[in-house]
Amino acid sequence: MIESGFYDLRIEPRDVDFTLQATLVTIGDCILQVAGEDADRKGWGVGDLNLHHAAWVLSRFAVELKRRPRQHETIRIETWVSEVGRMTTTRNFRLWEMAGGLIGASVSNWAMIDLSTRMPLNLREVIAFNGSVREEPSPIVHPGKIARVEPVRTVSHTAAYSDIDFNRHVNSMKYLQWIVDMLPETWHTERHCSRYTLNFLHEVHYGDLLQIGFEDAPASLFEIRTEEGTPVCRAALEWQ
Amino acid sequence: MIESGFYDLRIEPRDVDFTLQATLVTIGDCILQVAGEDADRKGWGVGDLNLHHAAWVLSRFAVELKRRPRQHETIRIETWVSEVGRMTTTRNFRLWEMAGGLIGASVSNWAMIDLSTRMPLNLREVIAFNGSVREEPSPIVHPGKIARVEPVRTVSHTAAYSDIDFNRHVNSMKYLQWIVDMLPETWHTERHCSRYTLNFLHEVHYGDLLQIGFEDAPASLFEIRTEEGTPVCRAALEWQ
Repeated sequence: MIESGFYDLRIEPRDVDFTLQATLVTIGDCILQVAGEDADRKGWGVGDLNLHHAAWVLSRFAVELKRRPRQHETIRIETWVSEVGRMTTTRNFRLWEMAGGLIGASVSNWAMIDLSTRMPLNLREVIAFNGSVREEPSPIVHPGKIARVEPVRTVSHTAAYSDIDFNRHVNSMKYLQWIVDMLPETWHTERHCSRYTLNFLHEVHYGDLLQIGFEDAPASLFEIRTEEGTPVCRAALEWQ
Repeated sequence: MIESGFYDLRIEPRDVDFTLQATLVTIGDCILQVAGEDADRKGWGVGDLNLHHAAWVLSRFAVELKRRPRQHETIRIETWVSEVGRMTTTRNFRLWEMAGGLIGASVSNWAMIDLSTRMPLNLREVIAFNGSVREEPSPIVHPGKIARVEPVRTVSHTAAYSDIDFNRHVNSMKYLQWIVDMLPETWHTERHCSRYTLNFLHEVHYGDLLQIGFEDAPASLFEIRTEEGTPVCRAALEWQ
């Protein structure tokens, strides 16, 4: 039986919003940080893939939350890989409070690309995953494909220095930041986001001009497009 | 002799830019996090001040850097308070690499405000600082007053949800983020910011429209103004 990895993270003042709870962006950042650390420990992290001139790319991501962690709270994130297909792998997460209660859960799908061609690789040909996969079902519904969005409101954004990560493309969680910044201010106090799903469709680079479109129907749907109209990211936020 | 506080922080992937070094914003965030933790331990943190219906406000901040910490590097931040005047207090920092070398240093000036009136308070009337102040000189030149800036280039920004912190105003380090996002992309690889100084002049709230002006002369000077032209933040970045 392959054991889960467990990682403890503390929510710092810079991670919270004016409700003193971790933002949706922080929670996503914490989950992705754990994904990176666990992959490193298993021998197929970013550094290991670089030796094969390859990199992980997040393709779909879903997070469900019973509540958001509070400032100064330490949470424990559990992670395990449940599937390795030819083109994608599935990594799962549970978010625990230190007293033992379940706060949330997450499912992520990852592809592997060649760093020169930026084209997908057959995962199984690059890395030996032997003994690292546990066929336990994902804790929540997998992140599905989000259909084309018909925005009723749009804002524009040019990808800036602070949006770009070590991979030299826009960091996955920056799309979510632009999205939450479009929501009405009162939603952050009066509603609870019980689930968010993200589809990442294309890489975005420094200086690219983007349109972020919002359709409220009844989940909040978002589509981020390039100047040419190519969708690069779609998102669905469900509320309670 | 009052001892310094020492705090270890690890630079995570979300903290670095495409050079795989901590951003200037991350470094400032780390220093301010340590300021908060150390004040908490000494009994005059945010929570303690709230009992007096008061809060700390950062008024000036300077950071000098020999180099930026790398991804996955753990740094040790040393801090001590060297002055408590009627209106401001000075907190100092040194940034150490774990092998013992000095990476950088910082000086911060703080005022205390009443949470209802947002007016300054006499620090000494609110908190007993007895035995917490060490009269060791600051490790670098204090953050001076930056004169009015005459911008040659300006961008606008509306303060968004993600800019607002637990104090319900724009987080100090967000000003720095808007500033570094205005710099030419090549400067992040071809230059080293050896010192940055920030003056915080007025609070900014959700939805406020701001103009961020940039004058290159030969330090990079910035002034952020409200729609009415009131300066809210000035900054000077020195390069090597």
